[in-house]
Amino acid sequence: MTSKVDINCDMGESFGHFKVGHDEEIMPFITSANIACGFHAGDPMVMARTVRLAKKKGVAVGAHPGFPDLAGFGRRNMELSKEEVTDTLIYQIGALEAFTKAADTVLQHIKPHGALYNAAAKNEAYIEAIVEAVCVVNPKSVLFALAGSRMAKIAEEAGMHVAHEVFADRAYTPDGSLVSRNTAGAILEDAKLVAKRAVRMVKERRIVAINGHDVEFDEVHTICVHGDTLGAVDLARAVKEALLTAKVEVVPASTFV
Amino acid sequence: MTSKVDINCDMGESFGHFKVGHDEEIMPFITSANIACGFHAGDPMVMARTVRLAKKKGVAVGAHPGFPDLAGFGRRNMELSKEEVTDTLIYQIGALEAFTKAADTVLQHIKPHGALYNAAAKNEAYIEAIVEAVCVVNPKSVLFALAGSRMAKIAEEAGMHVAHEVFADRAYTPDGSLVSRNTAGAILEDAKLVAKRAVRMVKERRIVAINGHDVEFDEVHTICVHGDTLGAVDLARAVKEALLTAKVEVVPASTFV
Amino acid sequence: MTSKVDINCDMGESFGHFKVGHDEEIMPFITSANIACGFHAGDPMVMARTVRLAKKKGVAVGAHPGFPDLAGFGRRNMELSKEEVTDTLIYQIGALEAFTKAADTVLQHIKPHGALYNAAAKNEAYIEAIVEAVCVVNPKSVLFALAGSRMAKIAEEAGMHVAHEVFADRAYTPDGSLVSRNTAGAILEDAKLVAKRAVRMVKERRIVAINGHDVEFDEVHTICVHGDTLGAVDLARAVKEALLTAKVEVVPASTFV
Amino acid sequence: MTSKVDINCDMGESFGHFKVGHDEEIMPFITSANIACGFHAGDPMVMARTVRLAKKKGVAVGAHPGFPDLAGFGRRNMELSKEEVTDTLIYQIGALEAFTKAADTVLQHIKPHGALYNAAAKNEAYIEAIVEAVCVVNPKSVLFALAGSRMAKIAEEAGMHVAHEVFADRAYTPDGSLVSRNTAGAILEDAKLVAKRAVRMVKERRIVAINGHDVEFDEVHTICVHGDTLGAVDLARAVKEALLTAKVEVVPASTFV
Repeated sequence: MTSKVDINCDMGESFGHFKVGHDEEIMPFITSANIACGFHAGDPMVMARTVRLAKKKGVAVGAHPGFPDLAGFGRRNMELSKEEVTDTLIYQIGALEAFTKAADTVLQHIKPHGALYNAAAKNEAYIEAIVEAVCVVNPKSVLFALAGSRMAKIAEEAGMHVAHEVFADRAYTPDGSLVSRNTAGAILEDAKLVAKRAVRMVKERRIVAINGHDVEFDEVHTICVHGDTLGAVDLARAVKEALLTAKVEVVPASTFV
Repeated sequence: MTSKVDINCDMGESFGHFKVGHDEEIMPFITSANIACGFHAGDPMVMARTVRLAKKKGVAVGAHPGFPDLAGFGRRNMELSKEEVTDTLIYQIGALEAFTKAADTVLQHIKPHGALYNAAAKNEAYIEAIVEAVCVVNPKSVLFALAGSRMAKIAEEAGMHVAHEVFADRAYTPDGSLVSRNTAGAILEDAKLVAKRAVRMVKERRIVAINGHDVEFDEVHTICVHGDTLGAVDLARAVKEALLTAKVEVVPASTFV
Repeated sequence: MTSKVDINCDMGESFGHFKVGHDEEIMPFITSANIACGFHAGDPMVMARTVRLAKKKGVAVGAHPGFPDLAGFGRRNMELSKEEVTDTLIYQIGALEAFTKAADTVLQHIKPHGALYNAAAKNEAYIEAIVEAVCVVNPKSVLFALAGSRMAKIAEEAGMHVAHEVFADRAYTPDGSLVSRNTAGAILEDAKLVAKRAVRMVKERRIVAINGHDVEFDEVHTICVHGDTLGAVDLARAVKEALLTAKVEVVPASTFV
Repeated sequence: MTSKVDINCDMGESFGHFKVGHDEEIMPFITSANIACGFHAGDPMVMARTVRLAKKKGVAVGAHPGFPDLAGFGRRNMELSKEEVTDTLIYQIGALEAFTKAADTVLQHIKPHGALYNAAAKNEAYIEAIVEAVCVVNPKSVLFALAGSRMAKIAEEAGMHVAHEVFADRAYTPDGSLVSRNTAGAILEDAKLVAKRAVRMVKERRIVAINGHDVEFDEVHTICVHGDTLGAVDLARAVKEALLTAKVEVVPASTFV
């Protein structure tokens, strides 16, 4: 049984005057921060501050690149060429890494955002683009990929460090995909239930899908919690406490992947 | 007398479907390419291609960060805070550096663009912001600064490598500033005249200002030529040939600054 | 003594996933909504919804065009040419007016936003640009201008309907300008105090400036309250109630300007 | 046999410093200008100038709204909701119409751009969105739709004026769709051939598809020529001259649709 897990959360999603999320309050309950890189959310000042905040709180820093779609928060699918995906990622990862240098810390991981993450779970061209971008720029960083996905498999075959990721507060389809955000019930808000699911995902590598059957995972390295919902802080706290109570070590992914 | 000089040119200024400049044709005549970083011009695909092109042609690569103003091509003044300038630069430099890693080359220099370059020649807060950005992210790279400017002086005092820059095809005011682009006669287009000015700037460290008197430079390390005008290629060729004829070595700034 | 006044508030300042303001809660206490037009805030969907909301609540609709600066929320000064200001305004006003047609209502007024509003209080080229934009596109609409400003005067001389505007929750300099937002104390948050100032501004056409002396207004047609602060709803309610108690009719500007 | 036809061309596709197209040179050979509205191309200043230019040349003005994708020139598919398409169109049409008011002319037509045009030829939600946007804002304007498309049919059923559009310089699939721009041979560049196809499309309502068989059109009202290719001016001239030689009247769509 897994005895270690990472908790990750999207951070730095504000943009200029527009404030999103509860970054400060959530930091104590996570070990990896996925920081938006200015394409779907975030801006240079927000990135700088969020990297410094993560460092101060002892949270590992990751790049969270997305589609160039601020108006859609990176959640709308876009048809990019493979070259466009690769270069768009290299750009965003490089920008975020510069802020880790400025804050005298390091880039631990890379997690594609939203529609790009979902598309990349299955789309071969996007997967190749992501693997290429990470390999040429930050080959030693950890790639966060949906547990059991094609992306996880292909990235591992390419010799990358891959953290298999599960979502404690999202409903699963029987094939291990996430139920679309546009579907009712896709996002779970009951902190106790989410915490329980998190523990089971880590200890048993299983979760009940929407059809009532269990989805099994070969590996579980990191759990995603959300930071921009009303009960986000309570939910993150509940997940971390339940894991600790269950004797799971909660540590950054790079320490064990 | 100076026996070495660098020739630099703005490159990679296209954006998506919008094509600007004659990058391929001009590369043979320059030694340093200032590559736009996506804020005033350029996009990730253009940046990737331009870095590869420069590497192939043996031209040193620099970041050319600008104000976040695509509509104004970075030529309109903007009132940013010091923090905004610093973070905006860190972001752009980091993005460009990622493409140098992807192309297995290095970032030689940083040259602020347009209104930011002009503002930074005098504005102390902007100068401090630029120096800070470069120092925390790429302390070993060369900063291109207007010859004799406050920026050049302050950056040198901060221990940075500074290339004093002159503009062969721009008119000068008596105090060594550039005549504004909006003024008639600000940009010289006669290739022979420009080449002659370039040679005199390097060999004598002097240029005739618009009042007929000479401006003197303490140091001259790099000459800027423009890449987006009609006669750009001929002008760049003329400058390089005149310098070679005058027994000036034309080499990247980092080899002698 | 004035017996009628309009209360206006900036509305529709959300952008995509980014939520700003308390539009629904504030609508009952205002008579004119200044709706952001997508350049400094707002997007087509937000504009459509906000126009429909205003219509449903019986609140008059105005265009609130700003500088093309989403990252700076239109609060950073930009150096645009007169032509750029004119065309940028025509564009935004036209876009907003289309949503008034779609909602079967009308465009009552135009109020420039943020740095553009402040610049236009004094900058002749900007004033001429604003007057020209309104005259060629919506000559019958009301222009909201800082009470006593050059813009108010020039627009009146051009034959436009001008509503002289005062700010109940902003500190004033002795010359009748607003104290910059960046100065401590620039924004008043005490609802009772703000309400009292509003009544005095309307009934006596006077307000105490930061030097303790009164600023006098020749005319006061509309009072601005803010919608994005914590106590915004209480403040708007307090202002409206105090005005009604003081026997001031609170009605849209177009009914009496 | 049809004796009248309109020739339309995309215009005003420059953006800030980025110049695209040969608007002035092509105007003499067209009767309708599809003017970009700032989302995929164009900006307020370009729109203002292009509307004035069209008016001066006696060319009818249309709005050419596209996806919000400047980087992709509106040619990349985006998954927008029906509400997003409707509001995005209302916004752009309104903005363009304001410039027609400023230039004392009128909005003749609306033609969706690029990926939106192609998606709308078949996607019912997008078609409904387009029809709704036009109906609520400019019900009397002419909608340009691919000849024989679902969009043409649905718009006509909604009581709109519809101009059935053909493309003289694009290859056709056997079902009357356009061959994708990404396919070799999708765009024809031989001016004589294109002119011949144009005449046949108008006089016989037929065109040879890529499989060698004829596609038949029920109606043909307007022919699209492209303005941003190398031979664009010659091609437009050839098309117009061939039509006149064939005794076809070349007039704006609104005069006969």
